[in-house]
Amino acid sequence: MILIGLDPGLTCTGWGVIAAEGNRLSHVANGHIRPGADGDMAARLVALHDRLHEVIAEYRPSGAGVEEVFVNVNPQSTLKLGQARGVVLLCAARNGIAVGEYSPKVVKKAVVGTGNAEKSQVHAMVARLLPGAKIAGADAADALAVAITHAHHLASARALKGRAA
Amino acid sequence: MILIGLDPGLTCTGWGVIAAEGNRLSHVANGHIRPGADGDMAARLVALHDRLHEVIAEYRPSGAGVEEVFVNVNPQSTLKLGQARGVVLLCAARNGIAVGEYSPKVVKKAVVGTGNAEKSQVHAMVARLLPGAKIAGADAADALAVAITHAHHLASARALKGRAA
Repeated sequence: MILIGLDPGLTCTGWGVIAAEGNRLSHVANGHIRPGADGDMAARLVALHDRLHEVIAEYRPSGAGVEEVFVNVNPQSTLKLGQARGVVLLCAARNGIAVGEYSPKVVKKAVVGTGNAEKSQVHAMVARLLPGAKIAGADAADALAVAITHAHHLASARALKGRAA
Repeated sequence: MILIGLDPGLTCTGWGVIAAEGNRLSHVANGHIRPGADGDMAARLVALHDRLHEVIAEYRPSGAGVEEVFVNVNPQSTLKLGQARGVVLLCAARNGIAVGEYSPKVVKKAVVGTGNAEKSQVHAMVARLLPGAKIAGADAADALAVAITHAHHLASARALKGRAA
């Protein structure tokens, strides 16, 4: 099963694709989308959407994990993040991909084992869990962490279902 | 020239279409899109996008005015508004429509003549400027006000261009 993790942002949206077979995870690809600081808001959102659509078309994930955005103290920043996030959720859903949303705390707990982990610990664990992955940057590492979280979540849901049956 | 005004919101997005010929404005249609409170965020954003796409396909506006969202005190509300707004801007831009963004103050000044006007004054002026319009509700009235603002803005830009030539 191919899964994509997404860390939305208007300046930079990280993405990470992994393959999950049972409890085994492996790295497929990762990167980031920078819609450019020039151009009006609408043009930047179109650039973000179209590039993400290309990534989805290339790797054809069946599920997506999206990081629940950090709610900034600055309302204008929160609004911009929301705009990028809306486009990311729309793009995934219109490609028929079921989306799971995970808070940073849940991601940290899934990847490192504690919700209070530092970002650097998360990135180190992502590199350890996905050996051989060449990670494009911090946003791509965050996205891979969300993809891992989503894989764990789906595995737990399957295990619970199996036990109930 | 057909113009659409949009007042984005996740619960309710108002839209209003007007025809502008020179300085003469007339009402074409207005309404609101309610993506439904049920379903996950991604599904609601898809519903908003698809319904707006239908409206645009029906009236084929060449320009869009979008209200600059009220920045709420509650960051979660601001984030949701941002998500709806991102989808609205994306939908307009992907349909090849140039988007102008206007703050509530600019809209009030364009429609009523003062940036400190009450909402009720704006709605009364919209009804007066677009005689015969049956207005679907407050969000649709706001959307028509933004469409009128966009029409004024384009007319001023043309006048300035004419003077410079």
